[in-house]
Amino acid sequence: MEQRRQDAAARLEEWKIDALLVSSPANVRYLSGYSGSNGVILLAANEAHFFTDPRYGLEASQNITCKVHVAKGPLIKAAAAILQSKRWKKIGFESASLRVEEYNALKDAVSLGFSLHPLGRVIEQQRMVKSADEIDRIRKSVLANSEAYSRTLKRIKPGAKENDIAAELEFQMRMLGAEKPAFETIVAAGARSALPHAHPTGHRLQENELLLIDMGASLDGYASDMTRVCYTGAPPKRVRDLYRAVLEAQLAALNAVRAGVTAGKVDAAARDVLKQHKLDRAFLHSTGHGLGLEIHEPPRIARKDKTRLRTGMVITIEPGAYIDGLGGVRIEDTILVTESGCEVLTPTPKEFVSI
Amino acid sequence: MEQRRQDAAARLEEWKIDALLVSSPANVRYLSGYSGSNGVILLAANEAHFFTDPRYGLEASQNITCKVHVAKGPLIKAAAAILQSKRWKKIGFESASLRVEEYNALKDAVSLGFSLHPLGRVIEQQRMVKSADEIDRIRKSVLANSEAYSRTLKRIKPGAKENDIAAELEFQMRMLGAEKPAFETIVAAGARSALPHAHPTGHRLQENELLLIDMGASLDGYASDMTRVCYTGAPPKRVRDLYRAVLEAQLAALNAVRAGVTAGKVDAAARDVLKQHKLDRAFLHSTGHGLGLEIHEPPRIARKDKTRLRTGMVITIEPGAYIDGLGGVRIEDTILVTESGCEVLTPTPKEFVSI
Repeated sequence: MEQRRQDAAARLEEWKIDALLVSSPANVRYLSGYSGSNGVILLAANEAHFFTDPRYGLEASQNITCKVHVAKGPLIKAAAAILQSKRWKKIGFESASLRVEEYNALKDAVSLGFSLHPLGRVIEQQRMVKSADEIDRIRKSVLANSEAYSRTLKRIKPGAKENDIAAELEFQMRMLGAEKPAFETIVAAGARSALPHAHPTGHRLQENELLLIDMGASLDGYASDMTRVCYTGAPPKRVRDLYRAVLEAQLAALNAVRAGVTAGKVDAAARDVLKQHKLDRAFLHSTGHGLGLEIHEPPRIARKDKTRLRTGMVITIEPGAYIDGLGGVRIEDTILVTESGCEVLTPTPKEFVSI
Repeated sequence: MEQRRQDAAARLEEWKIDALLVSSPANVRYLSGYSGSNGVILLAANEAHFFTDPRYGLEASQNITCKVHVAKGPLIKAAAAILQSKRWKKIGFESASLRVEEYNALKDAVSLGFSLHPLGRVIEQQRMVKSADEIDRIRKSVLANSEAYSRTLKRIKPGAKENDIAAELEFQMRMLGAEKPAFETIVAAGARSALPHAHPTGHRLQENELLLIDMGASLDGYASDMTRVCYTGAPPKRVRDLYRAVLEAQLAALNAVRAGVTAGKVDAAARDVLKQHKLDRAFLHSTGHGLGLEIHEPPRIARKDKTRLRTGMVITIEPGAYIDGLGGVRIEDTILVTESGCEVLTPTPKEFVSI
């Protein structure tokens, strides 16, 4: 954490600020290790202050190497009080996470002579390329997630409720070391699989329908993300063709990944294949996203995105096609960008499984 | 939902605005039924617009009675485009949820002649008093939560890991109909029970230690919240005294609840009892909070808070005392405020259980 804070502090000058108020929970965790819900960091060239409330005071004082301040009121005001005692003048803040109300409280609390500067996702940029330790944690998260899927898949039969399948997937990932799902597990059967973010319901799985499962674990703070689709029975040709087209698009996107390539080019690789199959209009989202402490992080693997991939980035590749009335197919892996291509971290096979 | 939007729209004049941009996810859900992660509402006197992205387009058009707009870019910009086409001049926004970045995008997108007005938690105020339908959902959430606790408690033995107990609690609540835990389940054994918001760890439950479990279900969108503490073995006098003091404080606070009483008075009832036991400094948080679509909602049951309780509010009562090195005790119920007192919704007994 100290190295990360030093790396960030070394860029204060470039950002044209004397200190940075970090309020995004994931960024606070990245820079301090604090994983609770109420923490703020004030980062300057040679010092770092961490603010939390009394519920977390003991934990923070034991584990956090910043100067720890336990505040009874709003953390922003406690941070402002420290600001008042320092000679820093230009204070940066995270405009993507700070609420207008917090901003106003900060503005009211600091006296004349201070100026507040909105910064974009600068710590998120720093987080894009993962350290060896982070990659190791993501690997563990991915493996637990795939193992939970595999254990559950063996037991899924027609008649099972979407809800109960989701409960079983989440129980298995927890027993494998996850602290929670990285997002609300999606289990969508039949026509509902055409809703890219369907919540599981009491619907019972029937014979001859699609079953889409999109799941991720959060393990030691790090996310994994995978989507697989199977079919209860022997899929008809129309469904097999849909599956094959999406898989072809996914493999094309994987094949396009390597350090130096733009995110947009990877997205285009998937989109072009789907277009050949006349499914480009059925592809309702972008091809993927970074992940780590959060389930969605930069970069976005999206149309025309010019971000260049770098070695050590961890992203998803997840094209899909959704046909109203029939259902949807999405195939998603978590992958590591390398110099020469990528390493697909997700070990789960991608054959179209009949259950 | 339409009635709720009408109730909110009827207050636009009082709030001195022509339209309100609703961006808090829970408020969006309250006013539209939309439970996804990317939705915004623009509410005016005689119309309501709902904005989401293509992932949720089909679902939204099927279920939401506002005018639905599916936007490919940032929702704020899509909302600004509608604003441009209307005659509204004063636009309110939720300063507790809108990010500075979104505010700036909104400001840039609307032309001269519009003005933006930060509003406090006005929809949250409307949400404080629950409807019969909401109370019914909270009851179901509370019952599932307590039943999950009861089923799990029977199986807990020394040697079990905190993590696995949490996994079992969450699995049981899901099997009982919850879509997820309302917050990260707290299972903290021994001295770690003194950390009011400890994450469960790989620690194995030992003989002769405290076990604190703080858990809540989210069922049909509505939260429940309960804390119970038990002991592995026969608790020594010091621990029994601690438990008794906290229980006495909890009962005193419950006894102080009724419509018309201030939240601060309820908090004082718990605090006074703990003071008599010289435990007031060991009580590190406030006595409770409202809950509903979110796990923490107004009102806060906190020191000197002047909010008057009203019939139909649903709140927690959860005093605690935390002794570094020994452990902590917190006892928490979800309750419904009534005219003459309260109804304790949580059915789980509060005897000090030895396991």
